[in-house]
Amino acid sequence: MKKIIPLLLLLTSIFPVIASAQTISPEAAIASIDMAWVMIAAFLVFFMHAGFAMVESGFTRSKNALNILMKNFMTISIASILYFLVGYGIMFGNSGGGFIGLDGFLLSGHEDQIGFFVFQAVFAATCATIISGAVAERMKLSAYLLLTLLMTGLIYPIVGHWVWGGGWLSELGFVDFAGSTVVHMTGAAGALATVMFLGPRLGKYSGNRTNVIQGHNIPLGALGVFILWFGWFGFNGGSTLAADPSLVPSVIAATLLSASAGVVASAMYSQIKFKKIDASLTLNGALAGLVGITAGAADLSATGAIITGFIAGIILVEAVQLFDRVFKIDDPVGAIAVHGICGAWGTLAVGLFATNGGLFYGGGGELLFIQTAGIVAVAVWTMAATSIGVFIIKKTIGIRVSQREEIAGLDFYEHGASAYERSGSIFNENTPQTVDGDFGVGLLKRLNSIDHKENNTVH
Amino acid sequence: MKKIIPLLLLLTSIFPVIASAQTISPEAAIASIDMAWVMIAAFLVFFMHAGFAMVESGFTRSKNALNILMKNFMTISIASILYFLVGYGIMFGNSGGGFIGLDGFLLSGHEDQIGFFVFQAVFAATCATIISGAVAERMKLSAYLLLTLLMTGLIYPIVGHWVWGGGWLSELGFVDFAGSTVVHMTGAAGALATVMFLGPRLGKYSGNRTNVIQGHNIPLGALGVFILWFGWFGFNGGSTLAADPSLVPSVIAATLLSASAGVVASAMYSQIKFKKIDASLTLNGALAGLVGITAGAADLSATGAIITGFIAGIILVEAVQLFDRVFKIDDPVGAIAVHGICGAWGTLAVGLFATNGGLFYGGGGELLFIQTAGIVAVAVWTMAATSIGVFIIKKTIGIRVSQREEIAGLDFYEHGASAYERSGSIFNENTPQTVDGDFGVGLLKRLNSIDHKENNTVH
Amino acid sequence: MKKIIPLLLLLTSIFPVIASAQTISPEAAIASIDMAWVMIAAFLVFFMHAGFAMVESGFTRSKNALNILMKNFMTISIASILYFLVGYGIMFGNSGGGFIGLDGFLLSGHEDQIGFFVFQAVFAATCATIISGAVAERMKLSAYLLLTLLMTGLIYPIVGHWVWGGGWLSELGFVDFAGSTVVHMTGAAGALATVMFLGPRLGKYSGNRTNVIQGHNIPLGALGVFILWFGWFGFNGGSTLAADPSLVPSVIAATLLSASAGVVASAMYSQIKFKKIDASLTLNGALAGLVGITAGAADLSATGAIITGFIAGIILVEAVQLFDRVFKIDDPVGAIAVHGICGAWGTLAVGLFATNGGLFYGGGGELLFIQTAGIVAVAVWTMAATSIGVFIIKKTIGIRVSQREEIAGLDFYEHGASAYERSGSIFNENTPQTVDGDFGVGLLKRLNSIDHKENNTVH
Repeated sequence: MKKIIPLLLLLTSIFPVIASAQTISPEAAIASIDMAWVMIAAFLVFFMHAGFAMVESGFTRSKNALNILMKNFMTISIASILYFLVGYGIMFGNSGGGFIGLDGFLLSGHEDQIGFFVFQAVFAATCATIISGAVAERMKLSAYLLLTLLMTGLIYPIVGHWVWGGGWLSELGFVDFAGSTVVHMTGAAGALATVMFLGPRLGKYSGNRTNVIQGHNIPLGALGVFILWFGWFGFNGGSTLAADPSLVPSVIAATLLSASAGVVASAMYSQIKFKKIDASLTLNGALAGLVGITAGAADLSATGAIITGFIAGIILVEAVQLFDRVFKIDDPVGAIAVHGICGAWGTLAVGLFATNGGLFYGGGGELLFIQTAGIVAVAVWTMAATSIGVFIIKKTIGIRVSQREEIAGLDFYEHGASAYERSGSIFNENTPQTVDGDFGVGLLKRLNSIDHKENNTVH
Repeated sequence: MKKIIPLLLLLTSIFPVIASAQTISPEAAIASIDMAWVMIAAFLVFFMHAGFAMVESGFTRSKNALNILMKNFMTISIASILYFLVGYGIMFGNSGGGFIGLDGFLLSGHEDQIGFFVFQAVFAATCATIISGAVAERMKLSAYLLLTLLMTGLIYPIVGHWVWGGGWLSELGFVDFAGSTVVHMTGAAGALATVMFLGPRLGKYSGNRTNVIQGHNIPLGALGVFILWFGWFGFNGGSTLAADPSLVPSVIAATLLSASAGVVASAMYSQIKFKKIDASLTLNGALAGLVGITAGAADLSATGAIITGFIAGIILVEAVQLFDRVFKIDDPVGAIAVHGICGAWGTLAVGLFATNGGLFYGGGGELLFIQTAGIVAVAVWTMAATSIGVFIIKKTIGIRVSQREEIAGLDFYEHGASAYERSGSIFNENTPQTVDGDFGVGLLKRLNSIDHKENNTVH
Repeated sequence: MKKIIPLLLLLTSIFPVIASAQTISPEAAIASIDMAWVMIAAFLVFFMHAGFAMVESGFTRSKNALNILMKNFMTISIASILYFLVGYGIMFGNSGGGFIGLDGFLLSGHEDQIGFFVFQAVFAATCATIISGAVAERMKLSAYLLLTLLMTGLIYPIVGHWVWGGGWLSELGFVDFAGSTVVHMTGAAGALATVMFLGPRLGKYSGNRTNVIQGHNIPLGALGVFILWFGWFGFNGGSTLAADPSLVPSVIAATLLSASAGVVASAMYSQIKFKKIDASLTLNGALAGLVGITAGAADLSATGAIITGFIAGIILVEAVQLFDRVFKIDDPVGAIAVHGICGAWGTLAVGLFATNGGLFYGGGGELLFIQTAGIVAVAVWTMAATSIGVFIIKKTIGIRVSQREEIAGLDFYEHGASAYERSGSIFNENTPQTVDGDFGVGLLKRLNSIDHKENNTVH
């Protein structure tokens, strides 16, 4: 009987003639297209994790590339399973006082929402993976994984319940269409709290001097930004939860135009400020514009989207400088500025530019006030909960790798391998680079000279 | 009230039962699926820009990689905004004598076409970005950006109006389904005109000798080609503008088969001609087959598509040699051969193989004549308009970087950074590569030795 | 008349008002969405070839990167055309005794199935390309291409006919939803047979010692894994052949959860076994989970999918060790373990966990027995047929490159080029790296020293 299915499906899909022998309702057709739309959007959001992985490994040093890749793969994997087990229930289960969902674990009683679960699961993973960029090159993998459990299993789902699960913020009228606050600012707030406990990378700050630690593969990072932008069409477009021909196209146009304005603004502003078009700021400008439009993609006009993205691109440049130079908070990929500051800006932008309720559209300040309240509430909850979690992890297994490990690179100590060919050049004609047991010896030799160098440069 | 929306949408998409409470017309279902199809196709075409960026940076030298990436990001960003402001109106506004659209700027009066705008905007950017490959490694970023404004704001929209906006070429019966001429040949004609003013890269031609300037990261370039092929299914498939079950599958099959035939032809022909399967020609063979089928994807049979792609793959190899060795036109990625010559071939192929009207299908020579006329008209207009624009830019701000800048790499002078880790090996254990102000000093030292080397090698 | 089409389509897609002027049946809407779903799934499966190319080049040495990329591009290209000419007919033509299809070549008589052909063609190419990873770094390109002709033109289509074309295995009740056996195990069985004739790479096994030959660009390989995972949603999701809102979401959820469980299992198990989270095993863990759920995606519960993927991730680690250390079968990317062993496991998992007929769901052992029989039949046929083919190729043109060629790298001898900049560092300021004729000289010089080195290290 099983064997029939493929052929049967095949017929219906290939011979409309035969298909029309059945009686199908227009509602069934709409259910099909809405489902397909949300599933395809989920695929695109999933693919954003490839973007995060490429951005984070490209913008950091080659000696830590494997470790960052592992963190990204583990994040999407742990998040998907944990969100199935508990996260979805906490976020969309029947509400306990508007603060937390209390059922629907393992989707029990929500079996018919399994497609919606997939779309939400890749969102949950996105929130968690934002942290991996900020803590890159120095956080213990084990500690990071515990934090990921906390974020995807508890902290994020609770925020999600407040805004999208029918909780108190949604009751209040807080508007966050696709998650400038729910996903991006929540991830950034968690990142900020974690980085405060973690401290900067060795050699990042020497006295009053702020050193630039260059990424090792910007083309890979740039590809990551393109992948994120591509995936964002699903992130925002799928948040309509239906292939609504009147709503979706304006959401997509807003996403394209805001990201474009972010790129142009960051490029222009870095040219004015530094007399050069800074590549990494311009790439982050695209993300700034995307994060910025995520809250208002369904409520802003095309022009409003361009303004929102343009301002996000300028805010980004200032925010990156502020964290890096003034606050001396070491965030290798600028995740806190991009997802946190621009996430907050995007949420406020709804209060300003929403064609329905925005301050500049005669809606008064009420929505703007509600948006502000929501940002504060989410930031306070996330930073408090993350701080407690990270504090406990720090006191137990520890959160930071040893200095020796950090200097040698996390790839060697945590994974016993390197991301690239270990020869003088990436082009080489040698046969086996590594032989059992040989690897350690080779690197340990180099380590001594490093320890030596390090002592001179840092202390 | 806003807060209700997500939940409401959620219900309709998850509980068909509730959805069926509403009365939906089959027309509404078709409108949804057609919209979704065109939007998803637009996402894929957008993603082609990641493909162009990877191909162009991978096939050139690492010292210019950041600059090329910036050009690609700025192109899609400027094009999207400018096409919203003026391009769409010029292309699809009410026609002034069949030559130019005169309204619809900022989509005013075309608000309900915002989805169609998104699809067309990423097309406009595609046309412009073709130029960035041909001018790589030597054109000033500022000059390139001015040229991008001209291409996406005026030159391309006018061509588009002629063929797709109801202009004189469409009146004539010119057939270019997805843009072999409108998008690809227009971009290549602009590239050819620009390169003529720009001249070859330093060291490309020494006396009668034509030097090979190898790309620095072919795997990244190959990924770019795969991304372009992937995106092309949206480029051609979405050009149906509707999820027509009788038309779309044959368009997709033609796209797959023509690209495949292009790969096989370029590989075989390079084996015959050079006794080796040339990697970069084979990769370009895929693009040749894709450009070649773009005009006729809706009008050729599967067999016709294979023939068209196969011939495109052979034409490519000869065209690349012709421009590089005979005309001594330096086109680092072969953009003019791929998009220009194969674009023209694909447009002519419609006149030969169209199952409806093609010469070999008993349609006589009329269509072939019209196709030829269209190619000539578009080439003349584009090259003339581009030449005037580039001439003015050259006389004002200049179009080419200094020799010193070209030798050091555009990344250093225009962006003050490098695309990769600046150590002896991409694998290294050093902490900070760069320290404020140190970067310049380090490179300037190297520059002197280069200036020295350069003087010996070139003159 | 042609010129009207775009505008007409444009109207229908943009003005639902005008669209509703026509009379459309709900069946037509379903036909549209089903077609769009299968086409988009086909795009995703096509994109998996970019994933295979990145995984295979990233996990091997830079000196063979071009060659592997060429093998991947040639595979998808040859497979698409050959599957059009003969493969589709053999697989889906009218059955000759349940063993082979006898008509439908060039889709004659199946013209209305051209969309289904595209989806099946990219599957055929997937099966063939699995071999390219196992034979990497030592198989002649020409011999590989002949093998690809055999796989996509005969061996795979016959297996496909047995299971999906209404052949004897489907008659028997064998269940392989999306191809754990049909696509993945078939490819792996072909790879195993080929590798047995081919032998290990030089320097892989010295006496009893098994050397680790590190990949040259793991970040690129990791991106490849992400691309494969992304594409797999189309591989499994599209195998429903219809956008069925009750079936598709559970197929997608199973795919996401099984892959996630595979990652978690491989990471945990490598931590336990090697005291380190092994990067390449963890990345392969994702593929193990994906291959494992491919047969049962439509028949397993979400929990069943997690269990299946988790077990696949553990099996993978043991299987890789077994082939590499015990059987001393050199498979550079672990293709045989991932696609073969995990493919067989996934097929058996249906017999164990299928909610309808699985052993653990009260279905008794019948299905499990049928599944086992199918695995054996496919493995025997594929290995026998491949062995005969490879034997003939070996006796005629030979299957392995010369030792000198293998040491220098296949890129130099087979393509006369290198995948990366040939300087001491990937960052360099030099103008032309290569000048006509110079390339050979340069490398030949290095070759002598290598031959020298090689003699010392290997013998």
